[in-house]
Amino acid sequence: MKGQRVDDAAMKPELKVFKIGGGIIDQTADLQEFVRLFSEISGPKLLVHGGGKGASEMMRNLGLAPQLVDGRRVTDAAALDIVTMVYAGKINKQIVAALQHHDVNAIGISGPDGDVIRAVKRPVQAVDYGFVGDLGEASVNANLLHQLLCLGLTPVLCPITHDGYGQLLNTNADTIAAAVAKALSPQYAVELHFCFEKQGVLADASDEQSVIARITLATYANLKMQGIITDGMLPKLESAFEALRCGVGKVIIEHALRIHGDVKTVLCLY
Amino acid sequence: MKGQRVDDAAMKPELKVFKIGGGIIDQTADLQEFVRLFSEISGPKLLVHGGGKGASEMMRNLGLAPQLVDGRRVTDAAALDIVTMVYAGKINKQIVAALQHHDVNAIGISGPDGDVIRAVKRPVQAVDYGFVGDLGEASVNANLLHQLLCLGLTPVLCPITHDGYGQLLNTNADTIAAAVAKALSPQYAVELHFCFEKQGVLADASDEQSVIARITLATYANLKMQGIITDGMLPKLESAFEALRCGVGKVIIEHALRIHGDVKTVLCLY
Repeated sequence: MKGQRVDDAAMKPELKVFKIGGGIIDQTADLQEFVRLFSEISGPKLLVHGGGKGASEMMRNLGLAPQLVDGRRVTDAAALDIVTMVYAGKINKQIVAALQHHDVNAIGISGPDGDVIRAVKRPVQAVDYGFVGDLGEASVNANLLHQLLCLGLTPVLCPITHDGYGQLLNTNADTIAAAVAKALSPQYAVELHFCFEKQGVLADASDEQSVIARITLATYANLKMQGIITDGMLPKLESAFEALRCGVGKVIIEHALRIHGDVKTVLCLY
Repeated sequence: MKGQRVDDAAMKPELKVFKIGGGIIDQTADLQEFVRLFSEISGPKLLVHGGGKGASEMMRNLGLAPQLVDGRRVTDAAALDIVTMVYAGKINKQIVAALQHHDVNAIGISGPDGDVIRAVKRPVQAVDYGFVGDLGEASVNANLLHQLLCLGLTPVLCPITHDGYGQLLNTNADTIAAAVAKALSPQYAVELHFCFEKQGVLADASDEQSVIARITLATYANLKMQGIITDGMLPKLESAFEALRCGVGKVIIEHALRIHGDVKTVLCLY
């Protein structure tokens, strides 16, 4: 069985899915440098970007108060308008234009575009998150992404989704990256790269040099038990292992400005 | 030669290019109704939308002053950010999500997406329009639009373009609609529809019933001379006749909420 899996992977074309988050997006020079580095990656690739602080800043400038619960944005109608403008408009188009400058034929895509990511409005429970969209098994239109990749295009996905009934929704960008990587795994040998402001998962949060080179399901359980992996890293790793279980070949956690370097955390099941 | 032209047109698939402007976009109910009507059009189609008052309103809410010279926006860096957010983000994604709800597989596209519309920053002359992009002969990537249409997608274009060097630009939506219609004419028998808040070109501006059913190059010259066509209608008709001269089969000027009706102005060369 193991040999069979390797053969299958060898026959599929490679696809690299990158996710960049807020820290990089908020620093224009860093974002430009990431775009340059990303443009040097050969072969089919896809970029998912988060939002950064631009939406909260815009809300404050408009006299609105951004609301976050457990680090997740509560998205009322006014906030939805603003995240749609900032994520799908400003950030997405600036990244696409910068990639075009570096000869990457990028195409910016939000969830409603080609029905590429369809979500379900999160049911109101303890918290009403408002217009936040959760993904299901069939949320990603892998066929369209494959068709765009076949045209030589590099999709650049922003975390705005839709419900199929005309309503836009706000979805977590890590979740989108993992869902896209999973959905494309039947057709591609997918490498999923979560890029952020550290060089990988750290064994000691205060020591940037303590990057854990490799985490398996077994060592992950240990790291959690020892309290080494906590907070914001937990959902990222949970969705990473879920992606691996669903056919993604490899998940890599690395610094957005060192994607060509050797220091990074590689996640694999065994 | 005339017979030859007709035969060519008969062999090409039809493509309907629609342009909607500010008046419709500013009224949510009207925009929803237009989307419903547009969804009923069969065959390959494409939508270009303008911006409406949302960008000016957003600027005022942020304490910025919108500047217009001869009805054209002066786009400084702050204004460019805002039109990008409003046009490429909010309006474009709301229209695409609404079309998806009506089972039209729409895909929102701005100029940098797939390098679909490349513009040149307008040179500073009497007026410095800022980040405004003018189109040239090779501005439209007709090949990509054709490929998207072949995938069964309905492109929804917003008037944000790029210069190929990473700079976004703001371009007139009528100009984009005409350029797209011209660029696709070698492959399609194109009908270009300019939709606005009147039923067509009026012989008497105060009489909504005075729609001129048909305008040719010759009658256009007369109407201009008599002062019947003035102001905002002039650039629209100029670009319409330019489009006809460049191979567009038919240009129609009509009410955005009566696109299935009989009352409209049809423009043709002879």
